[in-house]
Amino acid sequence: MKITVLSGGVGGARFTRGLLALLRDRLPDGAGGTSAQVTVVANTGDDMWLHGVRVCPDLDTLLYTLGGGVHEQQGWGRREESRRVSDDLAAYDLGWEWFTLGDLDLATHLARTELLRRGLPLTQVVQHLAERWQPGARLLPMSDQPVETHVELEDGRLIHFEEWWVRHRAALPARRFVQVGLEDATAAPGVLDALTGADVVVLPPSNPVVSVGTILAVPGVRDALRSTRAPVVGVSPVVGGAPVRGMADACLAAIGVATSAQAVARHYGLRSAGGVLDAWLVDTADQDAVPALTADGWRTAAVPTLMTDVPTTARIAADALALVDRVP
Amino acid sequence: MKITVLSGGVGGARFTRGLLALLRDRLPDGAGGTSAQVTVVANTGDDMWLHGVRVCPDLDTLLYTLGGGVHEQQGWGRREESRRVSDDLAAYDLGWEWFTLGDLDLATHLARTELLRRGLPLTQVVQHLAERWQPGARLLPMSDQPVETHVELEDGRLIHFEEWWVRHRAALPARRFVQVGLEDATAAPGVLDALTGADVVVLPPSNPVVSVGTILAVPGVRDALRSTRAPVVGVSPVVGGAPVRGMADACLAAIGVATSAQAVARHYGLRSAGGVLDAWLVDTADQDAVPALTADGWRTAAVPTLMTDVPTTARIAADALALVDRVP
Repeated sequence: MKITVLSGGVGGARFTRGLLALLRDRLPDGAGGTSAQVTVVANTGDDMWLHGVRVCPDLDTLLYTLGGGVHEQQGWGRREESRRVSDDLAAYDLGWEWFTLGDLDLATHLARTELLRRGLPLTQVVQHLAERWQPGARLLPMSDQPVETHVELEDGRLIHFEEWWVRHRAALPARRFVQVGLEDATAAPGVLDALTGADVVVLPPSNPVVSVGTILAVPGVRDALRSTRAPVVGVSPVVGGAPVRGMADACLAAIGVATSAQAVARHYGLRSAGGVLDAWLVDTADQDAVPALTADGWRTAAVPTLMTDVPTTARIAADALALVDRVP
Repeated sequence: MKITVLSGGVGGARFTRGLLALLRDRLPDGAGGTSAQVTVVANTGDDMWLHGVRVCPDLDTLLYTLGGGVHEQQGWGRREESRRVSDDLAAYDLGWEWFTLGDLDLATHLARTELLRRGLPLTQVVQHLAERWQPGARLLPMSDQPVETHVELEDGRLIHFEEWWVRHRAALPARRFVQVGLEDATAAPGVLDALTGADVVVLPPSNPVVSVGTILAVPGVRDALRSTRAPVVGVSPVVGGAPVRGMADACLAAIGVATSAQAVARHYGLRSAGGVLDAWLVDTADQDAVPALTADGWRTAAVPTLMTDVPTTARIAADALALVDRVP
């Protein structure tokens, strides 16, 4: 069974780790044979150049989470991280001190930058980095072209998404997101085929605006999702009216979508009505949304969706697949 | 008194530190007033891009040595250095693991790269870095254009100078040095004026081939040295037939110059005969060279030249200045 996941950072990475655990448990041919069937298309819209090195937050969170190197409590970055370089760098007074640039994480940025400077496209760079991390899934950037998300504030000022997200904790009201390079970007090699050739496509509980939303806006992706014969199932990143993690509510507010499981489903839209989803898994806290969505033609169910540990997450992945009759 | 020093890494940096100590001791207006009169023109021919960041070995050795941050025993790099990033980077298997990329040193490389990427010329980048280190002298790169030294081996293969120097410890016989970009480089703003407007120019005991030799080959520098009214005095980097430090003998061999104090003097040449020097300070171990050089018109003297500590180095600097009647 070929499964394609459209992922942002922490939420998508944790979901995928659970999915891979499920496949390892369920399928007789073990990790090697089954894991090759999962493709993760990662958001690269948060990427940026910082101090001359290329930082790809979501790709790294995926590599570290699936490769066993992630800082578990934090959800991103490396275990046993230190800040020797960035503490010293602060003495040069260049700004961006609020952006954590851990020493071990920096090794990844340097390796990536070296490979990009050698002329490799990001897709091949990720492949090289994955040789170390062995994520157990095929990891693809959404595009080989750089896309950088900026946030237009209410006073008209544009700041980099990471500055809005990390420095200001998404607390400055945003008017809209400006994704430089997105309209001219093309999907990375393998991305569209991974959608049209999949047996099931999953939208994990990632940020529906700046993570999954960005991937969907890569030219060709939305069309591929609409035309694929695979069912497309999403897991709500909103539980009980609040994002499970992160500040997706601030992003949803900026695009005029309410922070509710049902509103996010309707924002994605039903495929039969021009949207991208067939099914929507919500948390038990949002079971009120089930009858209304069902009445409108959605396949939907309410289950516990908090990804507290890997076995629990594997169960959530199983529930998502079951919702579209894909039982591994 | 305006003093201009043409410097490579360790030897030039230590000499300059001694010179600054001398000026602080001798001159009544203290460090602030006198230090502004020393200009160091630094070799940038060993610079390179490594993992996407710009490494400038000689400039950094100067900043750290003059700014009190150098690893004293090693002569280059930072005190209390660590290798957290580079140890982790090795797992990505990109090569160049033999090149030490210390964590604290890396902070400097990242700061420099950030400023270069913002579009600042190297001269201004160095100024910014110097705000932190307060070297007590004006520090200028020889050129704002990148110059990269490569070594042509006897089998015709070209390798980067750092690979030859650091990885192979200069043990592979070199046929010649190829300095990519040097012919088209222009001296950085301030460099030629610092030579023509100086009261004395000093060639410290730096590598005469790949450090001072590279600076001399920047278009305009040799002419400025020939035409300046300032006397030009050099301190021999060769003592008793061997380089005091480093592997200058391998460099000298590649250009067909014997490793002796006298041969290096004659390689630089007397200004009155089309060379760049008026005076040459040798070590007491090489006092045999004094009569022959004197007979040929050189101002020369033999004194202890081992820069064992700062006061000793200050005395060597005083001896060099005295040789051309420049007593601070």
